[in-house]
Amino acid sequence: MAFDRLIEGIVKMQNPTVAGLDPKLDYVPASIKDACFEKYGKTLEGAAAALFEFNKAIIDKIYDIVPAIKPQAAYYEMYGWQGVKALCDTIAYAKSKGMFVITDGKRNDIGTTMEAYATAHLGTTDVAGEAVDAFGADALTVNGYLGTDGIKPLAEICEKKDKGIFVLVKTSNPSSGELQDMKLENGNTVYAQMGEMCESWGESLPGKYGYSGVGAVVGATYPEQLAEMRAKAEHTFFLVPGYGAQGGGAQDAKNAFDSRGLGAIINSSRGIMCAWKKQGLTEDDFADAARTEALRMKEDILSTIGEITL
Amino acid sequence: MAFDRLIEGIVKMQNPTVAGLDPKLDYVPASIKDACFEKYGKTLEGAAAALFEFNKAIIDKIYDIVPAIKPQAAYYEMYGWQGVKALCDTIAYAKSKGMFVITDGKRNDIGTTMEAYATAHLGTTDVAGEAVDAFGADALTVNGYLGTDGIKPLAEICEKKDKGIFVLVKTSNPSSGELQDMKLENGNTVYAQMGEMCESWGESLPGKYGYSGVGAVVGATYPEQLAEMRAKAEHTFFLVPGYGAQGGGAQDAKNAFDSRGLGAIINSSRGIMCAWKKQGLTEDDFADAARTEALRMKEDILSTIGEITL
Repeated sequence: MAFDRLIEGIVKMQNPTVAGLDPKLDYVPASIKDACFEKYGKTLEGAAAALFEFNKAIIDKIYDIVPAIKPQAAYYEMYGWQGVKALCDTIAYAKSKGMFVITDGKRNDIGTTMEAYATAHLGTTDVAGEAVDAFGADALTVNGYLGTDGIKPLAEICEKKDKGIFVLVKTSNPSSGELQDMKLENGNTVYAQMGEMCESWGESLPGKYGYSGVGAVVGATYPEQLAEMRAKAEHTFFLVPGYGAQGGGAQDAKNAFDSRGLGAIINSSRGIMCAWKKQGLTEDDFADAARTEALRMKEDILSTIGEITL
Repeated sequence: MAFDRLIEGIVKMQNPTVAGLDPKLDYVPASIKDACFEKYGKTLEGAAAALFEFNKAIIDKIYDIVPAIKPQAAYYEMYGWQGVKALCDTIAYAKSKGMFVITDGKRNDIGTTMEAYATAHLGTTDVAGEAVDAFGADALTVNGYLGTDGIKPLAEICEKKDKGIFVLVKTSNPSSGELQDMKLENGNTVYAQMGEMCESWGESLPGKYGYSGVGAVVGATYPEQLAEMRAKAEHTFFLVPGYGAQGGGAQDAKNAFDSRGLGAIINSSRGIMCAWKKQGLTEDDFADAARTEALRMKEDILSTIGEITL
C-alpha cells in the first residue's frame, strides 16, 4: 500500500535517493544524437529516440543501486508527442528493471478531469473493454491549489492500484515563499496549511511503515522548513528536490528524515545526468559517471543519517 | 501582443466564448469509434484517432462562430502518447481554421523546467538547429503556487511569440475555497493575492486593449469573487469555467466583463460536446448540436452584456 514498495526498495538498497531524468538534448552525447538523427532525421522523432537511449543507458548503470527514477514531464513534452512516447518508454523500461517510477508532472485539476490525469499516469485506461496502461508510473507529483476536489479523485486509483502522489508543499525555488510563506490568519503559513491538508488526505491511504500514500514535495534548499514539516506532517513521505545543483547539501536534506532514516527520498537530476563534467570525463562516459555520482550521493546522505531501518 | 488576437476574434464574432474540447471516449458516437477501431484495432491508437475525428467534426461546425477552443490535456494523456498526438493534431487543425487555441494543462514548475513547458506548449523546440512547433498553442493555463520563478520563464516566449497564459486564481470547484479563500495576515484572501501577482506579472506584457498577456482563471460558480477580481485586476483577462454543466449562468458570468463587454472568455465543454442529449437528437448529430448550443450560449451571454466593443 501507499509508499510501502518505495520504502522497501530504499531499505534494501540502503539508498534514499531518486535519479531525476530530465534529459535536455544538450546533455545527450553527440554519438547517440548522430545515430538517432541518421535513423529518424533531424526531427522530433529523432530527438525523442536520443532521449530514450540516453535514459536507458543511465538506468542500466544504476538500477541495482538506486531504487527510483523521477522523469520530469516538461522535458519530454518539449519534443511533442514523440517526446511523450519517450517518457512512456522510459517508464516501462525502468519498471522492467524493478525501479519505482515517480512521474514529475505537478498535475492539477478537478473532478473527472483529475480522474483522467490519475487514470493516465497511475491507472489503466479503458479502451473498448480492454484495460491499458497509458503511462503506468508508480507515483505522480501534483499541485494542491484547487483543494480536496483536486486530490480525492486520485485516492481511489492510488488505493486500488497501490500507487502514491506527492503534493507540492514548500518548493525548492528562490521565489517559493511569495505565496507559500505568507501567513494565514489562523497562524499557519500557506505551506504548513498545505502540509496539514496532506496529512488529512493521507488518512484514507495508510501505509505499513507509518507513511501514507499522500506524500509532499519539500525542498532541501529550505532546511528549517523541512525540519518543521517533518515534525508536523508525521505520516507524510517527502520527495526532496534541491540537493546538489540547486545548492542543498546532505546536512540540509537530513532534516527530511525520521529517526529510522525513513520518511524521505532525495532527488538529484543534473548532478546525475551531467556527472561526467564534474568527474573530468568525456560525454561518452555519462552513464558510468552517473553511477559513480549515485554512489557518492548515497554515501553522502547515509553518512549523515546512518543505517535505514524499517 | 498578449491577448489582443483573442480579443479581436471575440469582437469580430461578437462571441466571448470558448469551446472546451475534453473528449471522453464515451462522448464519441459508435459510428466514429467503430471505424477507428476497425482501422487501428482496439488500441490507444484507435481511441486517439476517434477523439481527433470527433474534435475535427465539432471544429468544422463552429470555427466560423466561436473564436477559440480549449482542449484539456488530461483527456488526451489518458490515451497515452497516442492521445497526446491527438491533442497535437487537434491544435494544428483548429489553428488551420483560424481559431485561437488555449491548452488547458495547468502546468507549473520552476526555472529551466518551466521554460521547457513554455517551449513545449507555446514556443518552438530546437532540434539540431531546426525550430519545430511541439504543440503550438496560443495560450496555456498555469498554476502559480510556485511564485514568480514559475511564471517568468513563460514571459519571454509569450512576448517573442505573441502568446498568453492564464494563471489559476479562483477555480470553479466546490472545494476551491479550502486554500484559495483563506485570509492572509495582510487582509487578502489567497486568491486575491494570486490576482495581485497576475497584475504584477502582466506589467511586462501589456496589450493594445488594456489587457496583458497574463490572464487568470476565475470560475463562474463564484460570481461575487468574479466581480471582486474584475474590479481589482483590471489588466487581467479572465478565462471563466463553470458555465453550464457546473451550474454557472449568464448572470453569474456577466461579472467577468468590463463595461465594453471585454475582459473575459466563458468556457463550455460538456455543454457543447454533449449538446445532442439536451436537444433530443441522436449521437450522430453531435456536431450540428454543438453548433446550435454554441449559438444559444453566445446569445445567452450577449443578451446580458450587450454589444462587445474595442
